[in-house]
Amino acid sequence: MINIAILGYGTIGSGVVEVLGLNGDSISKKCGHEINIKYILDLKDFPGTPIENKIVHDFNVIANDPEIKIVVEVMGGVEPAYSFVKEAILRGKSVCTSNKELVAKHGAELLALSKEQKVNFLFEASVGGGIPIIRPLNQSLTADEIEEITGILNGTTNYILSKMTDEGADFDATLKEAQAKGYAERHPEADVEGYDACRKIAILSSLAFGMQVDFEDIYTEGISKITQTDIKYAKAMGARIKLLGTSKREGNHVYAMVTPMMIFQNHPLYSVNDVFNGIFVRGNVIGDVMFYGSGAGKLPTASAVVADVVDAAKHLGTNIMTIWSSKKLELSSITHAKHKFFVRIADSDAKVKDKVKEIFGDVEEVVAEGVENEYAFITQPIDEDTFAKNSSKIDHIVSKIRVRV
Amino acid sequence: MINIAILGYGTIGSGVVEVLGLNGDSISKKCGHEINIKYILDLKDFPGTPIENKIVHDFNVIANDPEIKIVVEVMGGVEPAYSFVKEAILRGKSVCTSNKELVAKHGAELLALSKEQKVNFLFEASVGGGIPIIRPLNQSLTADEIEEITGILNGTTNYILSKMTDEGADFDATLKEAQAKGYAERHPEADVEGYDACRKIAILSSLAFGMQVDFEDIYTEGISKITQTDIKYAKAMGARIKLLGTSKREGNHVYAMVTPMMIFQNHPLYSVNDVFNGIFVRGNVIGDVMFYGSGAGKLPTASAVVADVVDAAKHLGTNIMTIWSSKKLELSSITHAKHKFFVRIADSDAKVKDKVKEIFGDVEEVVAEGVENEYAFITQPIDEDTFAKNSSKIDHIVSKIRVRV
Repeated sequence: MINIAILGYGTIGSGVVEVLGLNGDSISKKCGHEINIKYILDLKDFPGTPIENKIVHDFNVIANDPEIKIVVEVMGGVEPAYSFVKEAILRGKSVCTSNKELVAKHGAELLALSKEQKVNFLFEASVGGGIPIIRPLNQSLTADEIEEITGILNGTTNYILSKMTDEGADFDATLKEAQAKGYAERHPEADVEGYDACRKIAILSSLAFGMQVDFEDIYTEGISKITQTDIKYAKAMGARIKLLGTSKREGNHVYAMVTPMMIFQNHPLYSVNDVFNGIFVRGNVIGDVMFYGSGAGKLPTASAVVADVVDAAKHLGTNIMTIWSSKKLELSSITHAKHKFFVRIADSDAKVKDKVKEIFGDVEEVVAEGVENEYAFITQPIDEDTFAKNSSKIDHIVSKIRVRV
Repeated sequence: MINIAILGYGTIGSGVVEVLGLNGDSISKKCGHEINIKYILDLKDFPGTPIENKIVHDFNVIANDPEIKIVVEVMGGVEPAYSFVKEAILRGKSVCTSNKELVAKHGAELLALSKEQKVNFLFEASVGGGIPIIRPLNQSLTADEIEEITGILNGTTNYILSKMTDEGADFDATLKEAQAKGYAERHPEADVEGYDACRKIAILSSLAFGMQVDFEDIYTEGISKITQTDIKYAKAMGARIKLLGTSKREGNHVYAMVTPMMIFQNHPLYSVNDVFNGIFVRGNVIGDVMFYGSGAGKLPTASAVVADVVDAAKHLGTNIMTIWSSKKLELSSITHAKHKFFVRIADSDAKVKDKVKEIFGDVEEVVAEGVENEYAFITQPIDEDTFAKNSSKIDHIVSKIRVRV
């Protein structure tokens, strides 16, 4: 029997309890040990519930109990999660977490520490909810040099963009509907401004390239400026607008960004809609692979946490994760990242077309039914810097959206 | 340094050599050891090539060399692969294979033997080419009870069906084109009749349900009877026809089958086209996940083989695979499997509609542009047995294709 403690009895924490209850027999069999929840750390008491007797309010009870071999951290946020996790590792306990803020901020340090302590720090649930992506990156794609990771990493924004596409509503109305259905939070900035996706692509990039990628360095744009008119143009082109977190290696440089992008049907992420997440990986020998599934939700996320618990239980005393170095990977500026750009100008005069042609060279005009008094086009593939310089010479640009080549 | 031997210098074998050459440095780093190819077993000599000095013709040279810790079996076919692999395991060597015939036929035995010998028998490349699916099933989805696995597991048939859909040609012409491009073999039966997909779904089912699923027990239909008219109807419904290998648990029963099926846009496998493979897994807590990528090809398959070599090298002396029991899983007959059925009758007389209604109850008529003198419909969800009984009462049925509900 292996004793574990759960830090936080919120959505994910109660999901972990539920999954271990529901599938306990088969989990014990695969694990080779019965998993017993000895403590649950929470501020509240939950009287009258089956977990009442497991509740503790003081982390030291857990830290000081040598019977606890694995700590499940599902509190979220950097503190006190970081202090608790560090203490647990120093006390020789493995840690499984769903906490993307913690992993993005302190992943390299906690991985190195857990290696020293011969325990494991596992975080499958921190990216892509239930979708297996951390373990495949760490253990399956080992024959490859990763050239690119691009993901639809946030279910809330993907839901909003899908609804805007399917139902023709604008951003604000769709956000409200998503909030009413519980798909978006009351304070939705972390999702809609791309901060959540940014932390996740930072974690994936650190793992893929083996060095610390600081999320603060990643250029991040959200979806709050996307309008129904943009969506109409996308449809007219057979494209969809998705919030993509991407990091790419080009020669010795890696750049990373989170932005809305137009993608076409030939890309596997095109079909990842609603609250689903998809993570596309390009390796230099495997080619293109994609991992698809529920990027959030109580049970899918708990499934990933419990799978980590099983792995930790099977590897007590042996560190199994590839670490990423705490040496910082200096991302190159996105100024040299090349895409096409979709641009709308609030000016339909014939002269504007001439001016665009003069500045951008050959462009492809885009016409959307029912949109008038503007001129929209797609550039040739150009870098960010050139685009910025050129577009500064044009007045009345209403919006620009990157287009995946 | 870890010495390995490769059995077979064909497409995959030469791919393994290429991948280890191309990414050797990063592979050594992830692995913690340099991987050295000491021998390559082949009937031919390859004079004047860089591997000339590694070639041996006698497997005993490899079996008798205690320096060889890992054997890569990429010969294909059951014999002599089976004898060589068994001997290697008995001599304390781990084996990594891409050989689906071998794994489907002898997987349970070789897994049990490798557990006894404290070595590993790994076969990521035997299903889905480069796509990580065996390791995720074995190590990531451990918190779940698997309810269903459904896959587009054969790139050749997916290419043919995609081309028939996109280009409007019939089966024979498309097969010829696929053969000319090297996407189909000269003797294409293993692919087009579903035998290849059958072995792969047998392997996945054995792993998912933990018991030996014999491929001979799996109901298998290929795609050679699919016509352009069927495709036209599918398009009219917004569906695509895919060759799906599926196994499902319903209560205590598991059934498995390989058949062409119509699927709709709301299913993630709908967007898996051309030579790509997709493997959809439904777990009781993770919900739906899908793994997508190149299901074949020299480098993607070699990528999966080399990833297994890295895993074997990191785990010398420790068995890491969950075994599936050699106890046979008695598949339940598909007679109780429920789907909708798409049916075409070569009779457009009004009376036939009445008869269909009398026998099948409410059905949905399907009309495809340019198809005349027939009546086509989709049934309500009914089981295979009921369908067979009912359809035997109707004359002139031209084709029936299952429809995923």
